[in-house]
Order: sequence, then structure tokens, then C-alpha cells
Amino acid sequence: METERLHQQLQFIVEIDKLKTVLRRSYLIEAERRENSAEHSWHVAVMAMLLLEHAEEPVNVCRVLKMLLIHDIVEIDAGDTFCYDEEGALDKAERERQAAHRIFGLLPEDQADELRRLWDEFEARVTPEAKFAAALDRLMPLLHNYHTGGKSWREHGITREQVLVHNAHIGDISEGLWQFVKGIIEDAVVQGYLTA
Amino acid sequence: METERLHQQLQFIVEIDKLKTVLRRSYLIEAERRENSAEHSWHVAVMAMLLLEHAEEPVNVCRVLKMLLIHDIVEIDAGDTFCYDEEGALDKAERERQAAHRIFGLLPEDQADELRRLWDEFEARVTPEAKFAAALDRLMPLLHNYHTGGKSWREHGITREQVLVHNAHIGDISEGLWQFVKGIIEDAVVQGYLTA
Repeated sequence: METERLHQQLQFIVEIDKLKTVLRRSYLIEAERRENSAEHSWHVAVMAMLLLEHAEEPVNVCRVLKMLLIHDIVEIDAGDTFCYDEEGALDKAERERQAAHRIFGLLPEDQADELRRLWDEFEARVTPEAKFAAALDRLMPLLHNYHTGGKSWREHGITREQVLVHNAHIGDISEGLWQFVKGIIEDAVVQGYLTA
Repeated sequence: METERLHQQLQFIVEIDKLKTVLRRSYLIEAERRENSAEHSWHVAVMAMLLLEHAEEPVNVCRVLKMLLIHDIVEIDAGDTFCYDEEGALDKAERERQAAHRIFGLLPEDQADELRRLWDEFEARVTPEAKFAAALDRLMPLLHNYHTGGKSWREHGITREQVLVHNAHIGDISEGLWQFVKGIIEDAVVQGYLTA
């Protein structure tokens, strides 16, 4: 066993513990507290295992799982940028690029490259795997909002139109899933969770 | 799209949000709070991606990831049983079996069966994938303890011997990793994190 290599791997594993303290805007469904990015990453990965059949293009589930497991690690340095925050979006890409460089760079070079490629693929949303992963990453907070009476939507005054535009990517992977999601959004308006 | 099937899938996805409120004995490395089982599941799955090369038998990483993503879901009903709790261990298997029946049973039958088989495989620790996953599930809290000055070990008066016995499974997947872990345990004793 090459000890230096294992040391680098464990250093990275210890470092990413910090993702458990990065808070998102979403709230847990039954609890009062906000969700963190580590538990979100777990949740959306399990979701991917289960909703795979709804993808219209064939996807390699293993690559989807790896992508979702690492997709938010950059937030350790860059923070979670709220998806409806237009100001934060301006320098999000640059902040996250620097974070990817530092954090993935803790690993042995071949693994740093592998994780960086997975993260770049996720961000580019071009491959079927990346489109599927990104669509579920949008669907998850929508479900959290719907099941908490729109708690985060209401706190930030989010409108039906914003949610429709932001989630339209779901239609790229599955027309059926998108019709279903649109139904949830319309019901959220009727229930008063979301501004018309 | 079969709507009833999607409803069952989403019902399960919403239900497992509760895993984020199941607390383990381990503490986060830099924070004061205890870790929950959802963020732990994420962390150990990422670890599996990175430490795969140390497995002496070839393992299918995709099955390892799926196993680790779902291995603690039963704790939603059964709670987290501390690994050094001899009394809790007595009825742990039965409590967890009932939990698996109820929670996986929320899914469409084919997916309930798939997750149940994965969980049974993990618990049985016979296949190379299950042995690898289970060994990392032991290694993770050891790293947390080591990097928090043995916080959870000290709280519960855990001894060097208990940790050696409990983590011996690591030797089943990799002699090199086990030698490394034994070094950490001996250093933890020297540092006073663990009772000799």
C-alpha cells in the first residue's frame, strides 16, 4: 500500500466533512431546520436510483450516482448559491471553479482529475447522465417546498413563473415527469404555497 | 407514465427525509453537533468511490454505492444502535427487519425487492461488495473519533480492545488498510483519545 496516496485520500475525506455545515434554503420536510448540502446529496442520489426509469434517454446510473455524490462539494468554499439569487449567480461559476481546484486538488492527481471531470460534466448538462442528475437536483427542492407548505418559496417571495422557468430542465429528461411537476406547481399556487 | 408508480416512488423519497433527523454517536469533525445518518450515508459513499483500489477482491463500485446509500434507511424506524451497545444489539436485527419491511414496502414491488435484496446483502457481509461497504462503514466513525480527539469514544468509555475487535472487518477487505487503521488506533491510545 502506498501510504502517501492513502494519506491524500483520507485528507480529502476528512475535508469534505465540512459539507455537512453548508446550509441550503430548503427545509427538512418534518423538522424546522434547514437542510445541509451533504444530506441533500445523499437524498438526491437515492432519488436517482429510483427514478431512473423515467429518463427518456438511457443513462449510466453509476455515473449519475458519482456525479450527484460530488456535485455540491465545491460549496465548502463557494457556499450554497440560492437558485433564485441573481446577484450571487454572477460570480458563482468562478467561485466554484476555484473551490473545485482547491478541494479536488487534495486527492492524488488521477482521482482529482476524475472528480473534476465528473463535476465539469454535471455543470455542463450536456450528457444524458448530467441532464438527468441536474433535473433531479431541481426536482428535490421543489418536493421539499411542496411538502413544507412552500416554506422557502414564501420566505423569498418566489413566483410560479420563476419555479416554472427554473425547473424546465426536468422536461429535457422526461416529458412525463415534467407534466407531473407542472401539476405540483399549479397545485402549490392553488394551496397558496407559491405566488401566482 | 404510470402515475401510481411515480406516486409510490415519491412517497418513499419524501419518507426517507426523516433519516436526516436520526442522530449517530459520532460528532462532525469541526462542529459540535452529532452527525445524522443521512449525511453519514453520503460521506461513506464518497469514501467508497475513493478507496476502491484498496479492496483486495474486485468489487462492483455501483453496487457498493447503492448499498451504502440505502444501508441506514431502516434507522428511520429502528433508530441508530450504537455499535458498542450490547443491550441494543439484542433486538437490533428484528427491529431493523420490521423497518425494512415497512419502509422499502412503500415502493413499487420490484423496487422494494431490489432495495431489500441490497440491504440483506449488506447485512450478511458475504459478497465482496458487502464486505467492502461494511468495512468502510466501520472506518468512517473511527476517522471521526480520531479527528475529534476521541469525543464519542471518551463519552462512552470505549477501550482500545473494543475498537480493535469492532473494526477487525477492515482486515477482511484489505490487509494494508487494516495495518494503517491499527496505527491510528495505537496513536489514539498514545494521544489519550482511547483507553488502553
